[in-house]
Amino acid sequence: MPVGTQATVKGVMQRDLAGELDAKIILANTYHLFLRPGHELIRGLGGLHRFMSWPRAILTDSGGFQVFSLSDLRKITDDGVLFRSHLNGDAHLFTPESTVDVQFALGSDIMMPLDECIEYPASHEAAHQAMRRTVAWARSAYHHYQRHIEESASDTALFPIVQGSMYRDLRRECACQLVELNAPGYAVGGVSVGEPRSLSLEMTEATVEFLPRHRPRYVMGVGMPEELPEYVARGVDMMDCVLPSRNARNGYLFTSEGPVVIKQARYRDDASPVDPNCSCYTCVTYSRAYLRHLYQAGEILFSSLATLHNLRYYLDIMRQIRQAIVQGTFRTYLHGVRNRALE
Amino acid sequence: MPVGTQATVKGVMQRDLAGELDAKIILANTYHLFLRPGHELIRGLGGLHRFMSWPRAILTDSGGFQVFSLSDLRKITDDGVLFRSHLNGDAHLFTPESTVDVQFALGSDIMMPLDECIEYPASHEAAHQAMRRTVAWARSAYHHYQRHIEESASDTALFPIVQGSMYRDLRRECACQLVELNAPGYAVGGVSVGEPRSLSLEMTEATVEFLPRHRPRYVMGVGMPEELPEYVARGVDMMDCVLPSRNARNGYLFTSEGPVVIKQARYRDDASPVDPNCSCYTCVTYSRAYLRHLYQAGEILFSSLATLHNLRYYLDIMRQIRQAIVQGTFRTYLHGVRNRALE
Repeated sequence: MPVGTQATVKGVMQRDLAGELDAKIILANTYHLFLRPGHELIRGLGGLHRFMSWPRAILTDSGGFQVFSLSDLRKITDDGVLFRSHLNGDAHLFTPESTVDVQFALGSDIMMPLDECIEYPASHEAAHQAMRRTVAWARSAYHHYQRHIEESASDTALFPIVQGSMYRDLRRECACQLVELNAPGYAVGGVSVGEPRSLSLEMTEATVEFLPRHRPRYVMGVGMPEELPEYVARGVDMMDCVLPSRNARNGYLFTSEGPVVIKQARYRDDASPVDPNCSCYTCVTYSRAYLRHLYQAGEILFSSLATLHNLRYYLDIMRQIRQAIVQGTFRTYLHGVRNRALE
Repeated sequence: MPVGTQATVKGVMQRDLAGELDAKIILANTYHLFLRPGHELIRGLGGLHRFMSWPRAILTDSGGFQVFSLSDLRKITDDGVLFRSHLNGDAHLFTPESTVDVQFALGSDIMMPLDECIEYPASHEAAHQAMRRTVAWARSAYHHYQRHIEESASDTALFPIVQGSMYRDLRRECACQLVELNAPGYAVGGVSVGEPRSLSLEMTEATVEFLPRHRPRYVMGVGMPEELPEYVARGVDMMDCVLPSRNARNGYLFTSEGPVVIKQARYRDDASPVDPNCSCYTCVTYSRAYLRHLYQAGEILFSSLATLHNLRYYLDIMRQIRQAIVQGTFRTYLHGVRNRALE
């Protein structure tokens, strides 16, 4: 899922998200939209889909992760989290119920409950406490959500989030308790928070085995291109990550031949496309030399063209994976990716 | 002509320049491209059209205006202008011949000779001296250009630039001397340098009457939307201006109902398009409320969408003017514009 934090995938027109990239779903951030322009304003304008002119699916996070990473003076209690806006310092309280309400105002297709995403490394005791709070909050959020969808006949989904840091026992306990909610899908949170990448995969594996096979499983905030099939191999259906879009803006382009760091002098007069195996607008139209010039000159067109390519690269990988699964060749595909990574 | 200073119309993909905007010609800046990425690099990559993937026409200025406005430590002699790069302080010399050579390297369709664009206000004596130098440089540049196109069978054009500050006698003298070159087109320079707008029009009128009726006449660096038909009424065929694109990035949108300054609180929950009479992608897709949100959030998508709209607004005006001329209704059109300006 491309990340559209502030109701925009940075630098990409919605026309290209749907056309050029054919993204089926994007992610938006509850914390950011709650603060600016405000969920009530978006509700008044017909919801987030209409506000940002994006008719396809939108997943919104709960805002919890951003509260922990961006805001000041936060205070966590069993009731929720008190924090100050990183924009203007205003105090706000997020509770399990209020973040569900915000996401209903946005009109998300998939909403996430407030959770406590603990930093890495964390002691077993701290991780246990955060996990227990996450479960309690998920229950409150889920019951609040259920009452709302029964009243409104909405078909919005809510995916509880499994936490537990890097402890297998906590991951299992959290997953098993959340599965009792019989939710339409589940998320694996608390990975990609600074731990080694192998550990992210290990914890995902230790979590996914306790989640229902017939419901979508979403790992939050991963990963590098070569990791995508690894997550899929472990039973993961959905992922989101800022890497393709953020790296694009920083001049780091993913290609089938390895990364292209566009500021390097070797691309100065390179007339070839970013990725000769890519058929995105950027690759069929522009040379590395031109993109390097735009980057060096600080031109915003660079960000747009680079983001378009990197997102296409990620989404093309997911399309290849889906095709391999349908054709029954996923194992071969995965081994091919692993062998290339070893080269 | 949309302005594409550094081989990019800021924030606009070439696809949209040709499709959505249907621009037939854009302007690029010799000074900027000479410094970065360098004209020899662009020549080596097949010229500016190929470098920036823009198959339609390109007009390049001589770089003179930028030398006078951007660079440090410039020294003007009859031979040319010595200056230091605003990027890294390197010393460079522009001569009438060298700027023609740079523009041949770029592969411009219309090139401009080095001129001395004097500040406003200027004494008659200073303006006279700059005008005489401009004529001498134009002759040197034109002869150099003629030798080159005879040798290379190129069909590039060079438009001499009429200077003379705000003095009618100097404008006439300059125009008459340049007309002797029998060039394929002529430009009016030295307007839009800080003088009142009525004076820009007056000086244009005082210049254009001495320029051949059957050759394109180009006024450099104008103007506001309501001024475009005024210039056309005075016999002007071509204009360039950074106003639509620069104002767009600053949140100032031109519309058929007057300017929309998007940061204003009145647009906070305004579900209407920027301009209800515009059929650009921005107007048919997004609300003022969404655009305001993007602007307030500092999102680069705002620059792209706003620039697309403002350029479309300008180019639509020029299309309306052309249509009115063809239909023989231009006087009526002009009076309509003047009456609306008085409302």
